[in-house]
Amino acid sequence: MNRRYAILALERFQDDAKTAHGVIGYGSDEVVAVIDPSCAGRRVRDVLPYLQSDAPIVENLAQALEYSPTALLIGTAPKGGGLPSQWRGVILEAIAAQLEIVSGLHEMLDQDREFRVAARAAGTRIWDVREPPDVPLFSGDAYNVEAPILLTVGNDCAVGKMTVSLELVRAANKAGSRARFVPTGQTGVLIAGWGICIDRVIADFAAGAAEQLVLYAAHEGADFIVVEGQGAINHPAYAAVTLALMTGCAPDALVLVADPRRRRIEQYPTPTLSYAESIAIHEGLIATVKPAPVVGITLNTHGLSEDDARAEIEHARAETGLPCDDLVRFGAEPFYTAIQDRLVKTAPRNAVTRA
Amino acid sequence: MNRRYAILALERFQDDAKTAHGVIGYGSDEVVAVIDPSCAGRRVRDVLPYLQSDAPIVENLAQALEYSPTALLIGTAPKGGGLPSQWRGVILEAIAAQLEIVSGLHEMLDQDREFRVAARAAGTRIWDVREPPDVPLFSGDAYNVEAPILLTVGNDCAVGKMTVSLELVRAANKAGSRARFVPTGQTGVLIAGWGICIDRVIADFAAGAAEQLVLYAAHEGADFIVVEGQGAINHPAYAAVTLALMTGCAPDALVLVADPRRRRIEQYPTPTLSYAESIAIHEGLIATVKPAPVVGITLNTHGLSEDDARAEIEHARAETGLPCDDLVRFGAEPFYTAIQDRLVKTAPRNAVTRA
Repeated sequence: MNRRYAILALERFQDDAKTAHGVIGYGSDEVVAVIDPSCAGRRVRDVLPYLQSDAPIVENLAQALEYSPTALLIGTAPKGGGLPSQWRGVILEAIAAQLEIVSGLHEMLDQDREFRVAARAAGTRIWDVREPPDVPLFSGDAYNVEAPILLTVGNDCAVGKMTVSLELVRAANKAGSRARFVPTGQTGVLIAGWGICIDRVIADFAAGAAEQLVLYAAHEGADFIVVEGQGAINHPAYAAVTLALMTGCAPDALVLVADPRRRRIEQYPTPTLSYAESIAIHEGLIATVKPAPVVGITLNTHGLSEDDARAEIEHARAETGLPCDDLVRFGAEPFYTAIQDRLVKTAPRNAVTRA
Repeated sequence: MNRRYAILALERFQDDAKTAHGVIGYGSDEVVAVIDPSCAGRRVRDVLPYLQSDAPIVENLAQALEYSPTALLIGTAPKGGGLPSQWRGVILEAIAAQLEIVSGLHEMLDQDREFRVAARAAGTRIWDVREPPDVPLFSGDAYNVEAPILLTVGNDCAVGKMTVSLELVRAANKAGSRARFVPTGQTGVLIAGWGICIDRVIADFAAGAAEQLVLYAAHEGADFIVVEGQGAINHPAYAAVTLALMTGCAPDALVLVADPRRRRIEQYPTPTLSYAESIAIHEGLIATVKPAPVVGITLNTHGLSEDDARAEIEHARAETGLPCDDLVRFGAEPFYTAIQDRLVKTAPRNAVTRA
């Protein structure tokens, strides 16, 4: 049975609720209300027109309950994963109202004694989407997957890697493929209903977890596998997660997802990479394990005028000679068509005896 | 009070007991016996002369108990961390004999119901060295450490990164420094008595854990910080751990540790990198966050004749123009002296506005 979600995004729905936006835009479960007093009284499409949802935004849980939700979704993922303390009261209210609690936070709500006791008493459950299963070490079995594997990489976190991955899968399936989206983060897992939050896996096993996801997609009969990327290869905190995906998924091709206005990695002094630099770093590093070219660049031009967006895309195309587009703004089909010929299997680098 | 260790290394002491060798060679706790029927009746120095230990190698736990150990150390770390089933009996015997159980395995022995119940009943304890503490995300505070920070990187796992780090610290302290070894793996933690097994940290927090270790060493007054590296930057399974250290420790310099005979990453088809390639990949990647040059190369020539060892060192020196040596075989002082002038602080890459 599908869920009916009330989404908790206190004061943050518009600007800092990636999970909420993803589930509204792409999820198979229905969103019946969003709780955020800072834009209460409006509808989702009034605040974020591209989401095309009429779900109401309300002041508090009591108002949300009028829309008969079956679950409360924690709609943002604060850096580090801690739960803002003012949210605890709302979650306890929701438990008392017998809603299922669905959370993508680092902090496991089901391991919080107060929440767990309350949920048991109310006869409802807490689903911590980030809790990863036990996985084996990377084995190399992913090298034998026959379907081309594409991994999105980005110039920072939260630039649109998940969205681009979803749009590519949609375009491929429209063109007759059996393409499959491989979710690696909390929103992706919530949207797809399966997957592993790679950033939550013990470091030694992160590549192994990525491999298991690709093997699952192959086993389900996918003829084109698109893996949601994480972080950025020069992210001071999260680069390790990025590299675990680059080795663990055994990709045949990379698509670079960039916000062209992002000059630094958010919250760090580190500059983002230029297109040329990014291509050189990713291709150079991945070639030491299994070569995978960057086959195209997708830009996140959200907030730019259409003219400025086209200029940014043209600039990226001229600088790199690669297919470039904004898949959300201008549709994914032309880009998918442009990269399709470049989706060819690559072999792992072979052991050679050096002189 | 120092421990008196009996080390469990059934059938594997000679070839596959890195933890055991490290604790015998560098630890502050005493090793009174090694349990390995395959070389029982000999002494450690008969089997591995470079360890210079007279500890007896015995058949079984009963024989080891004659040397009055206070703790049983699990002396190897199988790939993936699983505990060979035949070892369980010996561990239970040791618990019954009231020995403390010290383990660096992935599998937490204290979470094994049978072991835990037995340990409580016997009034002894189980120390799982790999269990990491909670740590914050990478903050950038490591950029403010005044002491030069050196990180060892390798052409594979188990080529000598820990040993080289320990030897460099010894040499620096002999020359009058207050240098400090920063342990990042189970053997290093066992030797130093503090540290975090980075490979066991949740991927998102691995860089943050590395940063905390460096901050601790700085806080303790170190004027030169040497971080034990892990994995290899092109290791299909463990590259993420390597990169977490490269970003999280904020190193100013790298030392490449290589086994020149290693042609492939163990257990994978992936070729090891040439010196030139390794330098280019490490320096290129780390420069996107905070530049750190490779200041020297140390080779593991164990098993080669002295002539062959010198030839390998000369070859590496000629190919790279860098100081090269085998620190275990020829002493660490000349190498430390050679790289000392290159240990200068580097600044994080600055955010710049691109055209």
